Amino acid sequence: MSNLPKHLLAGYHKFITGYYITESDHYRSLAREGQTPETMIIACCDSRTAPETVFSAGPGELFVLRNVGNLIPPYEPDEHFHSTSAALEFAVKALKVKNIVVMAHGRCGGIRAALAQSGAPLAPGDFIGKWMSLIAPAAQTVASSSLMTAGERQTALERISVRYSIANLRTFPDIAKLEGKGQIALHGAWFDISTGELWAMNKDTGDFERPEAP
Amino acid sequence: MSNLPKHLLAGYHKFITGYYITESDHYRSLAREGQTPETMIIACCDSRTAPETVFSAGPGELFVLRNVGNLIPPYEPDEHFHSTSAALEFAVKALKVKNIVVMAHGRCGGIRAALAQSGAPLAPGDFIGKWMSLIAPAAQTVASSSLMTAGERQTALERISVRYSIANLRTFPDIAKLEGKGQIALHGAWFDISTGELWAMNKDTGDFERPEAP
Amino acid sequence: MSNLPKHLLAGYHKFITGYYITESDHYRSLAREGQTPETMIIACCDSRTAPETVFSAGPGELFVLRNVGNLIPPYEPDEHFHSTSAALEFAVKALKVKNIVVMAHGRCGGIRAALAQSGAPLAPGDFIGKWMSLIAPAAQTVASSSLMTAGERQTALERISVRYSIANLRTFPDIAKLEGKGQIALHGAWFDISTGELWAMNKDTGDFERPEAP
Amino acid sequence: MSNLPKHLLAGYHKFITGYYITESDHYRSLAREGQTPETMIIACCDSRTAPETVFSAGPGELFVLRNVGNLIPPYEPDEHFHSTSAALEFAVKALKVKNIVVMAHGRCGGIRAALAQSGAPLAPGDFIGKWMSLIAPAAQTVASSSLMTAGERQTALERISVRYSIANLRTFPDIAKLEGKGQIALHGAWFDISTGELWAMNKDTGDFERPEAP
Repeated sequence: MSNLPKHLLAGYHKFITGYYITESDHYRSLAREGQTPETMIIACCDSRTAPETVFSAGPGELFVLRNVGNLIPPYEPDEHFHSTSAALEFAVKALKVKNIVVMAHGRCGGIRAALAQSGAPLAPGDFIGKWMSLIAPAAQTVASSSLMTAGERQTALERISVRYSIANLRTFPDIAKLEGKGQIALHGAWFDISTGELWAMNKDTGDFERPEAP
Repeated sequence: MSNLPKHLLAGYHKFITGYYITESDHYRSLAREGQTPETMIIACCDSRTAPETVFSAGPGELFVLRNVGNLIPPYEPDEHFHSTSAALEFAVKALKVKNIVVMAHGRCGGIRAALAQSGAPLAPGDFIGKWMSLIAPAAQTVASSSLMTAGERQTALERISVRYSIANLRTFPDIAKLEGKGQIALHGAWFDISTGELWAMNKDTGDFERPEAP
Repeated sequence: MSNLPKHLLAGYHKFITGYYITESDHYRSLAREGQTPETMIIACCDSRTAPETVFSAGPGELFVLRNVGNLIPPYEPDEHFHSTSAALEFAVKALKVKNIVVMAHGRCGGIRAALAQSGAPLAPGDFIGKWMSLIAPAAQTVASSSLMTAGERQTALERISVRYSIANLRTFPDIAKLEGKGQIALHGAWFDISTGELWAMNKDTGDFERPEAP
Repeated sequence: MSNLPKHLLAGYHKFITGYYITESDHYRSLAREGQTPETMIIACCDSRTAPETVFSAGPGELFVLRNVGNLIPPYEPDEHFHSTSAALEFAVKALKVKNIVVMAHGRCGGIRAALAQSGAPLAPGDFIGKWMSLIAPAAQTVASSSLMTAGERQTALERISVRYSIANLRTFPDIAKLEGKGQIALHGAWFDISTGELWAMNKDTGDFERPEAP
């Protein structure tokens, strides 16, 4: 017995009889020549924020790391298994991407968990809590802002987490060096699931703004 | 200055004036009600294998973890930051997904790195090497199969890695328990970038086969 | 010598030879019958946020109070001259408006002054400082949020000030009573000067959201 | 539930799809550079006398204080919250406007209240009465002019109130000083709702006259 869940099989059937046919030359070429994406995206696992959908991206366009809360931990060259650091290394050294975009989104369950747990002791084996504790100090500060609504606190922490991850990207010596030489650019973005609006981080101020039309 | 890379802005413009318009009610509803994906996919960061594309998946359908080589490390309830374990915990405990699919793909750069480095000492700070060393024993065995071509060794290790990750999924107590009760199903898949073919792992034999049409 | 500033005379000339001509019956009727606006708007003095412009409102439509920062002080039935309270009383008791809208806006100079001065002693005769000190506790809290950018702190306080003013509207016994009977509705709004976007306060959560199309 | 009154949403829709589109560059520039209005207008809350309409003023042109009866209380540097004084200070010291215009209008409800109540004891908590009592001595005098019709008394007090407010503007030390140096000009105006006529105060005589064409 080998069959995948029905909705996946139906979706794959649609792909192979539709999109793949129009893109088959492209896929063959990408298989032969390898991938050369210009851009790495760090996004959340959330089912509502696939970067390929939001950016209408075709095969070969985006190298995508997805974890809960689109977080980048600080550089830590130890003996542990670092999926995040491995992906960054692959993007920067093997693929030589020119852009890294950290993309957060509204109504993020990971951020909500961070806000809910702030201050509470983290149970051992509580992986979400431990993972989101990367931004625990920020979460505690934001959680205590009683003048902001729950929704505003959530959005604030989502955006703070982008700035936090971008700051951590700069703790990776290779990335810092390439950025210093102008060979890589770090970007922040925030996607509003409800309205479909995309907000881009202003590199000078850290504010999130609607990007100008292309 | 806030603008994102031009190709992203152009892609987003296409999304918001096209796909989003047809799906706006769906997006609003997903924002209001939250996500309820039935399926989690663990896929590679590779720019050519976006699960949403291969499975024609709309918003809300797939909860997606992506790392280099689509690997699941074994359960390890320690003090470290585990992005993989956090995503699994969120999918299984918060979202209560019914399926977890590990999807590998042809011409995987991570697998190629694992085959190339097998046996070589891993430099400290070599994150890809360290990450892919999760499958080092398998990589060494495959790399020494001089009877197979380089391409065959690559495909073999790609598929072995899926079985390895599924075995590790079962080291997570919650997942093992739910699978025992028939409340969650674990699947393997392998995507051929060049031909667009999808292969599904036979759960009894571990072989990869073309799935039956839906 | 009686002439007004040239730009006003030119603007008036445009009005009397254009808009007034198309609306002259309406003006005559409004003069004869009196005004019966359904809605009172409390807006800022800022030259970029005229409610009549943002809401394309014609004569007779909006009863408008404008002060720095669109603030409503708490009810205080003393012997002092209260321009705000007088306008509320006129709107609610004489005109019997059905809606009161507090409309803030981005890049508000009053809010910026409140954030800048938070914690500093207010010089006597410093009217802006004294007036904006109505929201001093909120300003101090927001000003200390070092995790937010200056722009984010500004937007946060602009929105908090709307909730503050709406809460103060409810300290006026007549307004509280009418709201209780469902005879008056209190709304919050925030106008983004740069993009022209209007955000409306959700009455249940206090969050600001893009209003649905009419 | 967040939606604003329907007539506002419809008006905003007209604005954002019409006027805003033709002025979007202007709005963006005003957001980026800040406002630099040359003129402050003190007008009434009345729904029929929006200064932006009467003067065909675009965004950024007029800094507008609106209260019932367009009154300026005398300078009083005490501990109370003065919305009027705060707006004057902002206009004069932060924005350095070159003109302040006090604009009254016909059929003013505030003035009518002042005429009706003159001589009557003001109930505590009667905010309109208290506010309009700023011009109580003048109102009493005018009310006793049995030779004038009710309409003439009303117009007379409307114009007296402009001269009263301009006199009070001169009690603000900064304004008096700037006027002395010729750096700010104080103007009076009166708008006839019915006919659309604008009358300007002659600075030498205090009379109201039709302004010369521009």
